[in-house]
Amino acid sequence: MNNIYMGIDVGGTNIKFGKFNANGDILNKWEITTRIVNNGEFILPDICDQIFTHIDYGDKLKGVGIGVPGPVTKSGVVLGCVNLGWPIYNIEENLSNLLGGIKVKACNDATVAALGECYKGAGINCTDMVLVTLGTGVGSGIIVDGKLMLGYNGAAGEIGHMPVKCDETEYCTCGKKGCLEQVASATGLVREAQRIMKSTDISTTLRSINSFSAKDILDLAKLDDKVAMDVIELTMGYLGIALASVACVINPKQILIGGGLSKAGTFLLNIIEEQFKQYVFKPCGDIEFKLATLGNDAGIFGAAALIINS
Amino acid sequence: MNNIYMGIDVGGTNIKFGKFNANGDILNKWEITTRIVNNGEFILPDICDQIFTHIDYGDKLKGVGIGVPGPVTKSGVVLGCVNLGWPIYNIEENLSNLLGGIKVKACNDATVAALGECYKGAGINCTDMVLVTLGTGVGSGIIVDGKLMLGYNGAAGEIGHMPVKCDETEYCTCGKKGCLEQVASATGLVREAQRIMKSTDISTTLRSINSFSAKDILDLAKLDDKVAMDVIELTMGYLGIALASVACVINPKQILIGGGLSKAGTFLLNIIEEQFKQYVFKPCGDIEFKLATLGNDAGIFGAAALIINS
Repeated sequence: MNNIYMGIDVGGTNIKFGKFNANGDILNKWEITTRIVNNGEFILPDICDQIFTHIDYGDKLKGVGIGVPGPVTKSGVVLGCVNLGWPIYNIEENLSNLLGGIKVKACNDATVAALGECYKGAGINCTDMVLVTLGTGVGSGIIVDGKLMLGYNGAAGEIGHMPVKCDETEYCTCGKKGCLEQVASATGLVREAQRIMKSTDISTTLRSINSFSAKDILDLAKLDDKVAMDVIELTMGYLGIALASVACVINPKQILIGGGLSKAGTFLLNIIEEQFKQYVFKPCGDIEFKLATLGNDAGIFGAAALIINS
Repeated sequence: MNNIYMGIDVGGTNIKFGKFNANGDILNKWEITTRIVNNGEFILPDICDQIFTHIDYGDKLKGVGIGVPGPVTKSGVVLGCVNLGWPIYNIEENLSNLLGGIKVKACNDATVAALGECYKGAGINCTDMVLVTLGTGVGSGIIVDGKLMLGYNGAAGEIGHMPVKCDETEYCTCGKKGCLEQVASATGLVREAQRIMKSTDISTTLRSINSFSAKDILDLAKLDDKVAMDVIELTMGYLGIALASVACVINPKQILIGGGLSKAGTFLLNIIEEQFKQYVFKPCGDIEFKLATLGNDAGIFGAAALIINS
């Protein structure tokens, strides 16, 4: 029999699956659409269907790791995944029961992605690291001393809601003002660009693009468009402040940058590192900045690591 | 034979000692003056003298725990304790050699104090907590999942140098501007009071005190002196911002407030909690605020716990 493990990454749009051997080598990967109707009640049955369909003759399923978009307590209770419509319930117990008692380990998706990068990506062999995800939102997963940092309620690493911009006038989705996510996410970049464009006459190619995106801003900044560059320096300045605070609190060895915005590559990475250096306390500032390398697969690798190492 | 442990807290002025049994009950405590001359070369020999003097007939010394004012790596290397004049060296090995091979565990003093509060103080049985020390400086010690969070270079918990005040014009001792310690320490309170007094004509008893202290400000705030109260709200507002960030990063269950300023008691504690609530991300905001209870003994209790639990 071949011992196999499933690594699963549940998102609001898709559910990604990876089938792994005991060494964490990926044997197969695929994805399905997330059915969020009826408070997400089809999600676990759909996952079980997929698992059973992909177990081959000679496979012995030893366990399932799963990352979900919301806080998960140490005992496996999801504390409300708003995107999926889920109530508060014990996902480890429920999924295990549906799978006839197979062991299940669940965790927040950002933390699982960090574990994935430590396991098979840019953070390999690093025991103290933070994976920062810059996309529609801003999140992070934290590894301390080789272990996932979950937090008392499973809400550790929620850096998107660190208060960094004291003069922000608009509200964040969380109900506060001045959160990191309001400035350093893809939507944050676009909003700050619109603000800067309103406040100045400086010419910028952004004015000629109908509803430009964060990618447009990054592409133009690389071409020395002044307004685009100002937007990146302003927004990554706030990220630098937030990461300087993270460094004071947990003193990691590495900070990895992932998520959609990180496709801008070393151009963006270097700006983030420069901004960070301006604000960080020196004894906590000796940090390697790297780009994450697993992209959208970080979650399934991390979910596999979660169960294989459990 | 009685198994005993020594818990030692090395400060820039005094070295505190506690003699403990294996249950962590304190049998005796005392202190000596820290001899910082000659780059602190007498400190370890002085410590050994004290230990040998206080071992009684029938005692068997099983180990020594020690907290020092600076970062200590996981392997026991102090990375420069500026206050003591110490170079970079392995304190665990050196002290153990001087003691004929007795086991020694060393750690940063703020972290050791947090461990002390968890072991026998206000944080008893709490596995996820932060002890914030508000005194001449601002520091913290962090316990995650029942373990000390040391950080990659032993510099975790350095919250005094989180950047929180973007419009600060003066430099912090660390060389940056806008650190938490510049506003929320005893000296920070005095400076902010002087600034507010210069910018307003409002009458305050502070004007009648020749070189007032942080304690004077806190005492007057309790008596409804408006300027004193404004100072406390302003400075604790910055502390609230910093602790809201700490909560997003590590999601603790408890935040304990200790250090000299905490003698202002629940009056100050309530203001800190109110300010924190204004800034924290709700899923990370379910935190108990408590006053630390061990005072200056937190260090020796924590140092004892460090070695007894090792």
